[in-house]
Amino acid sequence: MRFFSDNAAAACPAVIDALAAANRLDTAYDGDQWSLKLNRAFADVFETEVEALWVTTGTAANSIGLAMLCPPTGAILCHREAHIENDEAGAPAMYNGGAKLMLLDGPGAKVLPETVEAACARIRPDVHQVQPAALSITNATEYGLTYSPAETAALGDAAKARGLGFHLDGARFANAVVSTGASPAELTWKAGVEVLSFGFVKNGGMNAEGLIFFDRSHAEQARVLRKRSGHLLSKGRYLAAQLLAMLDGDLWLANARAANAAATVLAKAAAGRLVYPVEANELFVRMSPEEAAAIRALGFDFYDWAPGEVRLVTAWDQDMEAVAALAKAIEAL
Amino acid sequence: MRFFSDNAAAACPAVIDALAAANRLDTAYDGDQWSLKLNRAFADVFETEVEALWVTTGTAANSIGLAMLCPPTGAILCHREAHIENDEAGAPAMYNGGAKLMLLDGPGAKVLPETVEAACARIRPDVHQVQPAALSITNATEYGLTYSPAETAALGDAAKARGLGFHLDGARFANAVVSTGASPAELTWKAGVEVLSFGFVKNGGMNAEGLIFFDRSHAEQARVLRKRSGHLLSKGRYLAAQLLAMLDGDLWLANARAANAAATVLAKAAAGRLVYPVEANELFVRMSPEEAAAIRALGFDFYDWAPGEVRLVTAWDQDMEAVAALAKAIEAL
Amino acid sequence: MRFFSDNAAAACPAVIDALAAANRLDTAYDGDQWSLKLNRAFADVFETEVEALWVTTGTAANSIGLAMLCPPTGAILCHREAHIENDEAGAPAMYNGGAKLMLLDGPGAKVLPETVEAACARIRPDVHQVQPAALSITNATEYGLTYSPAETAALGDAAKARGLGFHLDGARFANAVVSTGASPAELTWKAGVEVLSFGFVKNGGMNAEGLIFFDRSHAEQARVLRKRSGHLLSKGRYLAAQLLAMLDGDLWLANARAANAAATVLAKAAAGRLVYPVEANELFVRMSPEEAAAIRALGFDFYDWAPGEVRLVTAWDQDMEAVAALAKAIEAL
Amino acid sequence: MRFFSDNAAAACPAVIDALAAANRLDTAYDGDQWSLKLNRAFADVFETEVEALWVTTGTAANSIGLAMLCPPTGAILCHREAHIENDEAGAPAMYNGGAKLMLLDGPGAKVLPETVEAACARIRPDVHQVQPAALSITNATEYGLTYSPAETAALGDAAKARGLGFHLDGARFANAVVSTGASPAELTWKAGVEVLSFGFVKNGGMNAEGLIFFDRSHAEQARVLRKRSGHLLSKGRYLAAQLLAMLDGDLWLANARAANAAATVLAKAAAGRLVYPVEANELFVRMSPEEAAAIRALGFDFYDWAPGEVRLVTAWDQDMEAVAALAKAIEAL
Repeated sequence: MRFFSDNAAAACPAVIDALAAANRLDTAYDGDQWSLKLNRAFADVFETEVEALWVTTGTAANSIGLAMLCPPTGAILCHREAHIENDEAGAPAMYNGGAKLMLLDGPGAKVLPETVEAACARIRPDVHQVQPAALSITNATEYGLTYSPAETAALGDAAKARGLGFHLDGARFANAVVSTGASPAELTWKAGVEVLSFGFVKNGGMNAEGLIFFDRSHAEQARVLRKRSGHLLSKGRYLAAQLLAMLDGDLWLANARAANAAATVLAKAAAGRLVYPVEANELFVRMSPEEAAAIRALGFDFYDWAPGEVRLVTAWDQDMEAVAALAKAIEAL
Repeated sequence: MRFFSDNAAAACPAVIDALAAANRLDTAYDGDQWSLKLNRAFADVFETEVEALWVTTGTAANSIGLAMLCPPTGAILCHREAHIENDEAGAPAMYNGGAKLMLLDGPGAKVLPETVEAACARIRPDVHQVQPAALSITNATEYGLTYSPAETAALGDAAKARGLGFHLDGARFANAVVSTGASPAELTWKAGVEVLSFGFVKNGGMNAEGLIFFDRSHAEQARVLRKRSGHLLSKGRYLAAQLLAMLDGDLWLANARAANAAATVLAKAAAGRLVYPVEANELFVRMSPEEAAAIRALGFDFYDWAPGEVRLVTAWDQDMEAVAALAKAIEAL
Repeated sequence: MRFFSDNAAAACPAVIDALAAANRLDTAYDGDQWSLKLNRAFADVFETEVEALWVTTGTAANSIGLAMLCPPTGAILCHREAHIENDEAGAPAMYNGGAKLMLLDGPGAKVLPETVEAACARIRPDVHQVQPAALSITNATEYGLTYSPAETAALGDAAKARGLGFHLDGARFANAVVSTGASPAELTWKAGVEVLSFGFVKNGGMNAEGLIFFDRSHAEQARVLRKRSGHLLSKGRYLAAQLLAMLDGDLWLANARAANAAATVLAKAAAGRLVYPVEANELFVRMSPEEAAAIRALGFDFYDWAPGEVRLVTAWDQDMEAVAALAKAIEAL
Repeated sequence: MRFFSDNAAAACPAVIDALAAANRLDTAYDGDQWSLKLNRAFADVFETEVEALWVTTGTAANSIGLAMLCPPTGAILCHREAHIENDEAGAPAMYNGGAKLMLLDGPGAKVLPETVEAACARIRPDVHQVQPAALSITNATEYGLTYSPAETAALGDAAKARGLGFHLDGARFANAVVSTGASPAELTWKAGVEVLSFGFVKNGGMNAEGLIFFDRSHAEQARVLRKRSGHLLSKGRYLAAQLLAMLDGDLWLANARAANAAATVLAKAAAGRLVYPVEANELFVRMSPEEAAAIRALGFDFYDWAPGEVRLVTAWDQDMEAVAALAKAIEAL
């Protein structure tokens, strides 16, 4: 019974069905009938015109998106715990020719507007120092916290005041939408976000992520960079079909709702042990090594995050009986 | 009835089945049971130990592979018509930090050993000129010609004499193996090839290509670069499963055999019109605009390659009745 | 008696004097009184407002200038014999993140407008091919030929028609100005040139070159890249002072006139042996190995350019007695 | 009376004389008689064989040197206040294709071995995280502190234990040698340093810095990168001559001794106000805005470093009467 990572879960049945349905000859690259429907489908989700590209990984989405916002000579502000800093092997620097990540602090991997402003204020506006060019935040964060529309908009304002582009890493965007109850629009372009990495793989997709440009002027160069980075698959329809299947009937929200619900059950059980409030599908739980061992002995699998702290992640297909059993085991500690 | 590109064909049933079979929770990235079998499976094909990585595109395979053979300050020798020069948006330069492609001439996009030597001899060995570091050839070539084991080995010798790494772009490697009757080993490491981009997508795969290191010392850095370039999919098992399914029972050879057979039928019909001998699954056929229009009017779709010249490509699943009909139509011109 | 390269000549006395005169404390980098005069001094030369930066090498000037005109994903069109292709170790690709040089043919290293147009026409306007973004020419060329204002303007028009930026490598710009009798303005911005690498080192400077932006919008980012590439010297005044000294009283023209005059003397002597007309300070002379050896035996030093061909270069301080002696020796062959 | 920066001081007379003496025709680039003497001259200073290259800036020296120690996929550990992080516009990332700087803390911009070890220990050894590849320290530091031979060797050991290359930014290496009384060898290769950026410009040079390889295997590629980055000046002899002039008779030590002596005088006067001990030629002095204004009113010029803190820098040619006057003024506060 794995509570290790939503990364490792299976793809949902609708995705598998969509692949089979797309399995016929069509135009290569992104000229097929599925790819051509993406702009429309995501425009409906976001209530505004967008340019929507498929890519296979969040790292590619983040890197291509950020390369549109930050020149090689600039810097991207992000949290010290951001995925782009910690878990992408320096991909953003590779994609935009060597840009720097400027690291911000803050509890729960959340960035505050005043932190952005303070970081910018520390930089002398001269040629000797790398100048900030973009802000990237993650919703839900690496610690499972969410930004509300108001919080996002305040960051959008801080970015705008300094002339920074604004990118949202939405590897778990679906979980944030479900958790906040806000609309996709409120959490993105209405709050100033120009580019969104819209995650599907952790939420039941197989290998397709969305890269959404609210500032559509970036899309042309982004398509060039997608090709240049080897991310323009020749049979792109199998990615587009996944995204369409998950948008259809709001399956993406249903999946996220299921993952969040499982996390909520565990959060109640672990109430006294939580390092952060549980606002999405991740829990960081204080647990001694002995306690962790006891839980593992019952057949549960999870990540040792830090000394005395474990991480539990729930996925779209988490077995609710296993969840109940784990909740019970935690309560029994 | 499309004879446009093998890029656009459907994925073969075994691939679809393999995806379904892999659709359960396993370890993320390349720690899953399918990915862990790749080295063994490809070692069997090549009769030697290899390191085998999955990637999603030939561009990624070529770029990562070449980055292991050529430093940012070096040059890659390739044919002027090579895919890495003409169709990858400069990806090799992005991946290795700005290396240069030095373009070689030769009929049918084939490179000759003496051309390699002459190009190297033209370069002054000083810091002012970019020094050659690697040779990349394509088998089958962009014009559907193949290199025999002896031809490949002669190029391997030429590369070795100049201290060049040796990369083989095998987007249509399967077609070359079938066509030459040579073993995979003879066409690669036995001829000096150190890195192979082993194509599956044009041959019935969905979105998985193989990147094979015969010089296994490169594999560790290649895995780093795969991650850094955003090509380490979190659910990698769906790629590994495709490759295993196509290696299983030599399906990859059967698929290529079918494609080549279709091309052979057309080649006979177009015998007097062929720009190059047909040695794989591509035909370049002299045809006036009026003739091409007449063929198209019968429902056949293909690419206008050059004035008075069209390209026909056959795929693993080419309908042999359509092939026969097209052959008849060409003969009737 | 060296006719090897203008690269190797001494610095002219005015430059040495200027260094001594600048040898006192002032503001670091480019905030000193000499650097602050550059825009004005070059504006006077070019009869228009410019942004003028000092750098230490032509390679730096070319690379920074071209990086303003061509994105990492684009291509720079230049002659196959251009310095940026043959003698700069791939610097342009390093500076702009991997851009490609597309090589043009043409006698005497001269580019023709129709060659530019033909090269652009060959590129499919899609994401698979690297798109041309800039044109770079050299005046005088690597073979000592010059472009007239009309020839330059025709190239400017060809560039504009394709949306290409237009860069002029003027390593021997002074020689071209003197030779053509055209004004600096006519050979540059009036003909569509946006960025000029204005050479001084081959013309009597010590280690300062000018990088001139007629499209001044590029200057800010160019200053950033000059710093980022390690070319913002902390005691920049010693570079600025050199440039000012050579502009003062048109010393740069006097120096070039002397070099060209020496070449003209030799050109007359070698009239029947010239590979190209002599329009600047370089001669390419047909000479058998035995003839070359005979000349060398008289104490003359020069470069073997190609089988049966030598290169003679004259400098600002070429000793006219040695020139006369060499002329006589060539005539006597 | 400027106490602003040693960057802004004049070049010392021996340097000016050396330029005049080198002002005659010789071989271009680094084939001249002066450049050819560098290895020997620096070998004498360091009591071991070295490869010594001239470059024009410390940024170029640092960036080329670090590119030899850290691949594009790696990270350079350095202090948060290091020049390479704060004042080089991201040059190290440009030179090595996007490497990351990992920032270390510590008072006075000094790095401790345990900080290096802790930073390395935090990195998971997998492909997701950028792996540390090199350590760069600065002696004297940005706050004018020095590392002793023992402190340097301890860092060398920490680097070696983790397989890190070891680079020393010696922009003020001369001041550190004089201050510690240690030999150049003890502060470098005997302590594990593989590459040294040996500063001359702040110490009375005009525009030449030394890049010294104790691990001589790096020199060949460094020479390539020097060219590729536009730092191979065609008249390199004027740089080599400067370096030789300053090594001759240990002028570099005499100059540094003078600068340090001036700082020592000021340090005594400001004893109660010093933020850090004064171990080289920089002082960081606590001073209210009113006090700073009072000092400035007397004709002294300096940098406001932080609220309530000013920076005073002394140079090789600091007028000792002005120093005495400033000392008196500070005491009188």
